[in-house]
Amino acid sequence: MNKPVYIKKVEAVDTQFNLKDGAGSDAIHTTPVYAYAVCKIHTDKNVEGTGLAFTLGTGNALVCQAINYLAKHIEGKEINELMSDFGSTYKAMADDPNFRWLGPHKGVVHLALASVVNACFDLWAKSKGVPLWKLLVDLSPEAIVRTLDFSYCEDVLTPQEAIDLINQNNLGISERIPIVGEGYPGYDTSVGWFNYSDEQVAANVKKAMDNGFTAMKLKVGSADSARDIRRAEMLRSLAGDEATIMFDANQQWNLPQAIAICKELEKLNPLWVEEPTHPDDVNAHVTLAKEVPVKIALGEHVPNKVIFKNFLQSGCMSFNQVDAVRVGGVSEFILISLLSRKYNIPVVPHVGDMGQIHQHLVLFNHITLNHPVVFLEHIPHLQDYFKHPVRIEGGKYITPMEPGLSSDLKL
Amino acid sequence: MNKPVYIKKVEAVDTQFNLKDGAGSDAIHTTPVYAYAVCKIHTDKNVEGTGLAFTLGTGNALVCQAINYLAKHIEGKEINELMSDFGSTYKAMADDPNFRWLGPHKGVVHLALASVVNACFDLWAKSKGVPLWKLLVDLSPEAIVRTLDFSYCEDVLTPQEAIDLINQNNLGISERIPIVGEGYPGYDTSVGWFNYSDEQVAANVKKAMDNGFTAMKLKVGSADSARDIRRAEMLRSLAGDEATIMFDANQQWNLPQAIAICKELEKLNPLWVEEPTHPDDVNAHVTLAKEVPVKIALGEHVPNKVIFKNFLQSGCMSFNQVDAVRVGGVSEFILISLLSRKYNIPVVPHVGDMGQIHQHLVLFNHITLNHPVVFLEHIPHLQDYFKHPVRIEGGKYITPMEPGLSSDLKL
Repeated sequence: MNKPVYIKKVEAVDTQFNLKDGAGSDAIHTTPVYAYAVCKIHTDKNVEGTGLAFTLGTGNALVCQAINYLAKHIEGKEINELMSDFGSTYKAMADDPNFRWLGPHKGVVHLALASVVNACFDLWAKSKGVPLWKLLVDLSPEAIVRTLDFSYCEDVLTPQEAIDLINQNNLGISERIPIVGEGYPGYDTSVGWFNYSDEQVAANVKKAMDNGFTAMKLKVGSADSARDIRRAEMLRSLAGDEATIMFDANQQWNLPQAIAICKELEKLNPLWVEEPTHPDDVNAHVTLAKEVPVKIALGEHVPNKVIFKNFLQSGCMSFNQVDAVRVGGVSEFILISLLSRKYNIPVVPHVGDMGQIHQHLVLFNHITLNHPVVFLEHIPHLQDYFKHPVRIEGGKYITPMEPGLSSDLKL
Repeated sequence: MNKPVYIKKVEAVDTQFNLKDGAGSDAIHTTPVYAYAVCKIHTDKNVEGTGLAFTLGTGNALVCQAINYLAKHIEGKEINELMSDFGSTYKAMADDPNFRWLGPHKGVVHLALASVVNACFDLWAKSKGVPLWKLLVDLSPEAIVRTLDFSYCEDVLTPQEAIDLINQNNLGISERIPIVGEGYPGYDTSVGWFNYSDEQVAANVKKAMDNGFTAMKLKVGSADSARDIRRAEMLRSLAGDEATIMFDANQQWNLPQAIAICKELEKLNPLWVEEPTHPDDVNAHVTLAKEVPVKIALGEHVPNKVIFKNFLQSGCMSFNQVDAVRVGGVSEFILISLLSRKYNIPVVPHVGDMGQIHQHLVLFNHITLNHPVVFLEHIPHLQDYFKHPVRIEGGKYITPMEPGLSSDLKL
C-alpha cells in the first residue's frame, strides 16, 4: 500500500533556454528559444510532481497562465485516487467551459493540459517509487484504460476494444521485456540543423557515427531547393548507403512544392520525409503520398487524438511522431499510441522533452502494446538542465530507473 | 486622397457579458459567458480601430495578452499603406516565431490575430469614411487579393485564380447591388437555446414568426435523445411545414451517436444539422454525410483556412459557417469565402460578433463573389452593448451605413 499523497498547490514556471550557434534551427524557426511551461505539483508529503509542455519563445508565458487556471481541477486530490479514474478528470479539463472556445483541444489551453497531465503522472509514479515505464507496464489493461479519455474516438476504438488489444498482445510480453536491459536505440537529430554550415554537418555526421548512431536527420526546406538537394546528397554520401537518413521540412512547403522536391529527395532513399507541409492538411499529405513514393512522418504539431485519428484513417502517415509534451500529456499519448497500434503505424515520438519522458513511453509502447522497436529521437542541447539527463551509450538509450518521468529540471 | 493615419498604440480589452435565464446555452456550454477579446487601435488622428474575437468565459484574458504581443507588428504603421499589402503582415503575424509553436494557426494566438486583423480593417474603413461592405465592394480584385495570405492553399487557389474568380463574377454585379437597399435576410437562433423550457421555445417561435423570421434554430444534443426528438418535433409542428428549421448539437455527439440521432432528426426535414461531432473530425463528417441524407453545417470551431479547405474538398460540408471573429479576421474570412465559392458551398456565417461585422461580409460575399443569398444568423443578446447595434426589420438586416465594421462597443 502506498501512503496517500494529497495535492496541496500547483505552480506554473516559465522556463526558456537560448540555444547556441544555430542549434535547433529549422526552415520556419531560424532562431529558436526552447521553452517549457512547467507544472509543479506540491503535496503534503516530501514528493513533488513535474510536468512539461514544450513550445518556442515568449508565447510560453500564455501556457503557464493556462496551467494556473487548470490547477483547480486537481488541487486537493489524493494522487492514487485521482489516477484510478484519471480519464474523467482529463475530460473535465479538456472540456472546461472557460477554455473550450479557445480550442477545443488545441493550442495554448491544450498545451497547458499536457503539462498538468504529465505532472500528475510524474507524481503518481514518484508516489509509488517507480519509473514511469515500470508503472505503466505493471498496470492492468483496465487500469490503463481508466487513465484515458476516448471521447470522439469511439468510432474506431472503444475502451473495451483497447482492453482487448492489450490483452491480445500479452502473450509475447516476456520476449519484449529484455529491451529494458538492452536499451532502446536512438537517432541523432542534431547533425543537420538548418543553419549549420556544410562543414559542421559533415563533422557532426562523423561524430554521430563514432558514437554508435546509425540513423540521423537533416533539416531541409530552403528557399533555394538546390541547397536542400545538395546537402541531402552530402548526407547520404557521408553516412553511406547502409545508414538510415531522414529529411525534415518543418512545414515549409505548400503541396505543389512538396511534391516537386520530394520527387528529388526520394531518390536518396530516406526512411521518411518529415512535416512536408501544414500539419492540419490531411488531404495534402494524402495527395503527396499518392504522387511520390516517399514515407511521411509527422506529429509534433498535430494537436490532438481527433486529428491523429484522421491521419491514421487516411493511410498517408507512415510514422506517427506524437509527442507527450505537445498533445494532452502521457494520457493522450497512450490513447494515440493505441489508435496507431490498431492501424499498424509505428510510433516514433518527436521529443520536445529531449527524450526524458519518451524513453519511458517507447518502452511501454513496445512491451505492453507490442509496437515495433524503431528508434527514439535524441537531441542533446538541454542535457545540462535536467536532474537526470538521458544516458545514451553506443547509440542506445539506457533505461532510466529513477522514480517518475525523468523530467525534473534544475530550476 | 485620404489623410495618412498612423497607428500609435494598440490596447487589448477583456470584455465579458453574463447572459440571463438560459440564453446562449447549448449541450456543451450550459452557462455561457460571452466574451470579446477587443483590440483597440489608437492613432494620431481622431479615429480608432476596434477589432473583436469571440470566446466564452475567463479564458478570454489569454487572448487579450496575445493581442498585446502581436501589436508590435502594426504599431507605427500608416493604415492605408499597411492595408495595401496586408497579406504580408497577416502572414508575419500568423507565423510569428514566438507564437507558432502555440498553433500553428489555431487556438489563443489565432483568435488574437483575428482581433488585430479586424481592428486594422475597421480603422481602414473608418479612415476612408465608409462601411466595410462598401470598402470591400469597391476594391479591385487585385487589391482584395493583396489583403490575403494564400499560404498552404495554393494547391486549390492561387492569387491569380482568385482574381480570375472575382472578375468572372463581375458581369452580374449590377443585378446583385440592390440587396443593399432590400436588406439581407436573417434567421433566429435564439428561439431554442438548450436550457429553455418547452413553453419558452413555443413563445419564442411565435415571436420570431410575428417578427418576420421564416427560419429558426433549436439546440439539441441532450443526454436523453428523446428530449431532442420531442423538442425537434415540437418546433416543426409550431413553425409549420413551410418554415426553415435547423438543429444544432454543438459537438455533443461522437460519430455512432450522431448517425443514430441524425436518422431521426432527418425525418423532420431540417435545412441542416449543425456541429454534429468534433469540429476537427473531417472523416467523421464524411461518414455521417454518407450514412444519413442530412446536410451538415459547421465552422464556428474550425480554426483556419487549411481545415476549411479539407472540409470543402471532402464534400461533407453543405453550409460553411466561417466566422470572422473566430478565424483570422476579415482577411481569412474572405480567403475562406473564396475557397468556398470555388467549391460552390454557400457561406452562412456563425455570428460570434452578433452579426455586427457579418452583416457587411455577407453583402460583399453576395455582390462581389456571387455567393448565393441564404440568410444571416441573428442573436440579440448583446444589442445594448454595441454603439451601432444591427437593425432588423421584417426579418431582414438593414444595411449599415456607419463607417467601419459596426463593432464598436460602449466600453
